[in-house]
Amino acid sequence: MIGCGTVGSGVAKLLRDEASRYAARAGRGIELRRVLVRDAAKAKARGLMADELITTDADAFFATDGLDIIVEVAGGRGPVADYVRRALEAGKPVVTANKALLAAEGAELFALARRHGACIAFEASCAGGIPIVTALKFGLMANRIDAMYGILNGTCNYILTEMTQRGIDYDTALSQAQALGFAEADPALDVSGQDAGQKLAVLASLAFGERVAASDVWCFGVDDLNLADIKFGQELGYDIKLLAIGERTDAGLSLRVHPCFINDREPLAQVHGSFNALSVYGHATGHTMYYGRGAGEMPTAGAVVSDILNIAGGWYPVAFESMNLWPDGHEAAEVASSDELKMRFYLRVNALDVPNVMAQITHVLGESGISISAVLQHESAVGQFVPVVILTHEARQGDIRAAADRIEQLDAINSAPVVIRIIDMPQG
Amino acid sequence: MIGCGTVGSGVAKLLRDEASRYAARAGRGIELRRVLVRDAAKAKARGLMADELITTDADAFFATDGLDIIVEVAGGRGPVADYVRRALEAGKPVVTANKALLAAEGAELFALARRHGACIAFEASCAGGIPIVTALKFGLMANRIDAMYGILNGTCNYILTEMTQRGIDYDTALSQAQALGFAEADPALDVSGQDAGQKLAVLASLAFGERVAASDVWCFGVDDLNLADIKFGQELGYDIKLLAIGERTDAGLSLRVHPCFINDREPLAQVHGSFNALSVYGHATGHTMYYGRGAGEMPTAGAVVSDILNIAGGWYPVAFESMNLWPDGHEAAEVASSDELKMRFYLRVNALDVPNVMAQITHVLGESGISISAVLQHESAVGQFVPVVILTHEARQGDIRAAADRIEQLDAINSAPVVIRIIDMPQG
Repeated sequence: MIGCGTVGSGVAKLLRDEASRYAARAGRGIELRRVLVRDAAKAKARGLMADELITTDADAFFATDGLDIIVEVAGGRGPVADYVRRALEAGKPVVTANKALLAAEGAELFALARRHGACIAFEASCAGGIPIVTALKFGLMANRIDAMYGILNGTCNYILTEMTQRGIDYDTALSQAQALGFAEADPALDVSGQDAGQKLAVLASLAFGERVAASDVWCFGVDDLNLADIKFGQELGYDIKLLAIGERTDAGLSLRVHPCFINDREPLAQVHGSFNALSVYGHATGHTMYYGRGAGEMPTAGAVVSDILNIAGGWYPVAFESMNLWPDGHEAAEVASSDELKMRFYLRVNALDVPNVMAQITHVLGESGISISAVLQHESAVGQFVPVVILTHEARQGDIRAAADRIEQLDAINSAPVVIRIIDMPQG
Repeated sequence: MIGCGTVGSGVAKLLRDEASRYAARAGRGIELRRVLVRDAAKAKARGLMADELITTDADAFFATDGLDIIVEVAGGRGPVADYVRRALEAGKPVVTANKALLAAEGAELFALARRHGACIAFEASCAGGIPIVTALKFGLMANRIDAMYGILNGTCNYILTEMTQRGIDYDTALSQAQALGFAEADPALDVSGQDAGQKLAVLASLAFGERVAASDVWCFGVDDLNLADIKFGQELGYDIKLLAIGERTDAGLSLRVHPCFINDREPLAQVHGSFNALSVYGHATGHTMYYGRGAGEMPTAGAVVSDILNIAGGWYPVAFESMNLWPDGHEAAEVASSDELKMRFYLRVNALDVPNVMAQITHVLGESGISISAVLQHESAVGQFVPVVILTHEARQGDIRAAADRIEQLDAINSAPVVIRIIDMPQG
C-alpha cells in the first residue's frame, strides 16, 4: 500500500478486522505486506500495523517479496504517478483512489497496464463508497448512456444544503463545513468545481466510451452563489445543486460542472448534506440513480477493499483484459462548445424600479431570440434597485451570454446579471 | 433464448440494434441462435428474428449448434426449471430473469451449475434495470451488510403513490394500474407482497451470505390498506411504502415484506410511481441506495443483455467459480421469529367517543409494556365511533399483537385495531 492517511488507515482496519470474511469471499487470504509512506513516525503512531511493514524507501517497498497487488491511496500526482507506473511496469495490478491522476493520465496508465499484463481498479476514485464505477462498467453494459448528472462533491452539497435549508450565507456554510472536517483548510479544489470535474472525466470515459481528460470539463464553482438567488429559486420550485453533467448533444459531448437549478421533485434534489449521487440515463434501462457517501475514511476504504477482493478473486484482471471499456481503447471525445449548449436559464437583474426598465430588459432578450417563461419581481418602493428574476425558455448559452452583456450596459442596471442554468432532466 | 414475451422481445431488439456496439464491448459478436417458445406463430408475428430460429421443440432447441449461453426469459417454474437444469447439466452458462425459480430452487441450481462448470447470471431477476445484483456481489464486497430496505414491486408502489398523492382509494388505484399495464389481470402475486418476497429472498442470500428461500420471507400485502391511515400517516410526517426488509437482529435474520410508514424525508420516501429502489446499509460504506425502473421491456432486457455481455467477455464465469458469494456455498439462514422483532407501531382504533375509552386503551398498552410516543384524535360529535391514532415507542411485535387482541375486546371498540409498522432506518 502506498500512502497511509485517512483512506489508507481505513483499508488497514478493514483488512485487519475482516480477514476471515475476506479470505472466504475471495478464495484467498489478503495480507498487508508493506506500506510506503512519507512520514514513518506518523504512520507508526496510528498503530494499525507492525512497524516493520512501514517504509519510506520506495526501492525497499518495491523489492518486498509477495506483493501481488499495489494499492495507491496517497493521492496527487508527481512521485505517486511514478510509483503507479513502476507497479504497472512490473505487471502488478493497481488499485487506486486517485481521481486527479486518472483524470489527467488515465488513458496512458491504462495503456501501460495493458502492455504489461497488469490492470487498474478504481472504484474509490469517484463518489467514494457508491459502486458507480462497477455499475457503469458492468451493470449497465447493454446501454448506450445518453446523459448523466452527478452530485460528486460532498463539501459543495453540504454548503448548498445548509444555505437552502437554514438560510445561511456561503461564508458561514463553508466555515461550518471546515469545522466539521468536510472541507479542507484550502477549499479551492472543492468549491471551484475542479474536484467534481476530475471525477466526471473518469466517469464520462466509462459511460460514453470516449476518452475524456479533466481539461475537457468546463468547471464553474459555488463560491459566488448568493443566498437571494437560492431563495428565489425555491419560490419558483427549484433547488440549487452543483451538478457534474455529461450529455450527448448534437454538437458533441457536453462535459461541465456548474451550479444548477433543478426541479425540487427530482430525486437528485433530495440528496442532502455531504451525500453524493449520480443519475444515469441509458437507452435501454432509462433512469437509474446511485446514492451514498462520496467520501470519508470507511466508505472510501470499502471501495478500495472491494477492488482488492475482486482482483484477488481473479475475475477483474480477466474483465480488464477482455472488455473494451477503458479509456485507452477509445477515441478522444469531441467536446461540444459551451456557447452551443441549449438549456433554460435563470437571470437576476438588479434594476432601478422605474418605468420602462422591464421593457428594456425584455427587448434585449427578444432581440437575442430568447423567450421568457416566468418573471418574478416583488413589490418595492419606487426608485430603488430591486431584483427582477426572469426564467427563460430553452436558449443557446452563447445568446444568453451576449444578452447578459447588453443588459449590464443598460442605464437602469447596476451590476452584471446573475445567470444560473436550469437543468431539465430527461423524463421516463 | 427460452421464451419470447415482453422481456425476450426486448432482448432480441437490443441484440439486433446494438450488435456492433456489443461486439466491441465484449470482444466477440453476440448472435441469437435459436428461440424456444410455446406458441411459434405468436413469436413469428413479432417479426424480431428469422422464422427458422423459432422452435417449440425443446430437443431441437438444445441440439442447436453453437449455443454458448442459454438465456431464460420465460419465467415461472415447471418445464422452465427443467430447461434451466438441462442447460446447466450441459455446462452452459445461464442468464435468467426468473426470480420465482431462484427464490425457490436457487441453491440447488447454483450447486448444479458448479458441478458442471457452468454459471448463472441473474441481474434481471431483481428490480429489473437497476444493477443491484452487481452492486451487492461485487461493488459492496468489502462490507458486512447489516440491513436492506427495498421498494421492489412497481405495481404496489404505483398504487401507494396514487393513494398518497391523489387521495384515491385502493380499488381505484389498482384499476388504474391495470389500465396502464403495470398490474396483471390477476394482481395477487404483486399486491400480496409475494413478488417482492421472492426478490428479497434472492437479494438477501447475496447480501447476508446466508441461504434464504422465498418461504423464509414473511409477506403481508397492500390490499387491505385504508386511505384514512395513509392520510393520518402523512399528517404525522410519514409516507406509506411496501418495503422488502432484510435486517440482522439479535434473534437472527429478519426477512419480511409489509406496508410501512417511513419518515417522509427518507430517500426511499421520494421513490414514486412504478420506480423501484433498494437502500443498503454496509458496515464500511454506510448507506447506499439504488434507484430505477424495476420492470418493463427494455429495462429488464438491458439487465439480461448486460449479463450476456459479462459472460461473453469471459469474466463472469471466473467470478462465479472463484468468489464465494452464491447461495449454494452458504449455511441456511437462521430466521428471526416475527414476534421477537422490535420496532415502532402505528395503531388506529375505532373507539366510541365516550369518557374513559382512551384510559382503557392506554391501560392495555401499558400492561403490555408498550409506551406511547404520540396520539392523534380529531374533534367529533360525542357518542360516535371516531378514529384514535396512537404511535408507540419501540415494542416487541408479539406484544403489539397481544395488545391489539385485547383492545378489540373492549366494549367501546367496534373493530380490530389497524396496525402499521413504522420503520426507522439506520442513521449515518
